[in-house]
Amino acid sequence: MTIIFYDLCGKNGKRFSPFGWRTRMALAHKGLEPHVELVKFTEKSKVEFSGQKLVPVLKDEDTVVYDSFAIAEYLEDAYPDRPSLFGSPEGRGMAKAINNFVDMTIQIHMANLIVADVASNVDPACLDYFVSSREARFGKPLAEVQVGREERVEILRKSMEPIRRIVSEQPFIGGDRPTYADFPLFGTMQWARCGSTFAILDPNDPIRHWFERLLEDYDGVGKSEPAAG
Amino acid sequence: MTIIFYDLCGKNGKRFSPFGWRTRMALAHKGLEPHVELVKFTEKSKVEFSGQKLVPVLKDEDTVVYDSFAIAEYLEDAYPDRPSLFGSPEGRGMAKAINNFVDMTIQIHMANLIVADVASNVDPACLDYFVSSREARFGKPLAEVQVGREERVEILRKSMEPIRRIVSEQPFIGGDRPTYADFPLFGTMQWARCGSTFAILDPNDPIRHWFERLLEDYDGVGKSEPAAG
Repeated sequence: MTIIFYDLCGKNGKRFSPFGWRTRMALAHKGLEPHVELVKFTEKSKVEFSGQKLVPVLKDEDTVVYDSFAIAEYLEDAYPDRPSLFGSPEGRGMAKAINNFVDMTIQIHMANLIVADVASNVDPACLDYFVSSREARFGKPLAEVQVGREERVEILRKSMEPIRRIVSEQPFIGGDRPTYADFPLFGTMQWARCGSTFAILDPNDPIRHWFERLLEDYDGVGKSEPAAG
Repeated sequence: MTIIFYDLCGKNGKRFSPFGWRTRMALAHKGLEPHVELVKFTEKSKVEFSGQKLVPVLKDEDTVVYDSFAIAEYLEDAYPDRPSLFGSPEGRGMAKAINNFVDMTIQIHMANLIVADVASNVDPACLDYFVSSREARFGKPLAEVQVGREERVEILRKSMEPIRRIVSEQPFIGGDRPTYADFPLFGTMQWARCGSTFAILDPNDPIRHWFERLLEDYDGVGKSEPAAG
């Protein structure tokens, strides 16, 4: 009866995947302790059994689920007696909308600022793959992607405003306790924390305080992963 | 025991305010039938009693509330036995995040496409105010704001993708029934429908089907307002 969680890793088992962190927090929220199988960028054959190549993948007995939001939905349905990830049926779709907004705004702006830094945390054996696949995605050399980031960081900060307005008034997006609605942006912030030393936020940004609360939550699972540097 | 709803209007009592529509749908969702006080752009003195100049404003006995999301929260708390706008306490913050994402992405892209069209639906007595205040906001003549919109409409369409992905799989953001999470984008779409004849969406866009469902809902309150043209 062990859940197997296939999560991406970099060098020395470092786990920085923004999508992996969404799943890791969802498992912690449900109080589930999976067996973790680390998957390097060039080890995607480990998850071929899922019919696709992306991590995170969850295997729970005979059930295989991929895509971080689908994993959250699976956990909510398979473990209904554990703390709810969405709060209500209505909250499931709302959390998904927030998930999608983060993917298409904040996560993209963040990638444009730190992706070359992340490369330095990738296992040397995977570096060629990482660089060539990311350069294809961005359409330019990786070193050029980060050019001008001291100015462009303002675009990222502004893109967080929809969530900043909420977590400056209450501890988490869903109220007093974390829900899955917090985890997409948490994943993006954790990716930056573990993959780069670039200063993303002002010290007194409410998003930073919210992130620090989440790092401490669930017995500090977020904080257990060392910051880059 | 009558709720008074101060809503913006254009010429001939036309009601196209995107924020007014959020409130109008919230009232319909709660099954409340307010007394409506129409407020033209140059009649903001009508809502001075609220301590600020923006509509919508709600007056329920001795309680005065402004800001469309604050109004929704008030209605949820004051009428707890009526259908819930948020589904759960967690859903309240999640809906607010969606509200904020729509304000800072989709609503802005829409304004850049139709604001000069909206001017033609403004009461002639308010036109000078409307044009000068909007030109100050956009930093250019109103006619120039819409230039190139046939190409730029793609930016708007793409910005709706976080919600499109959900309403292509289920009827509304929160599931089978509308919640407040639907109303921010509904307001933006209704603003376009009542204020402009510009083609916003492809005929088979899932957002369009979702919008048409909402126009019919609540005894067709959305459809009761005539489209521009």
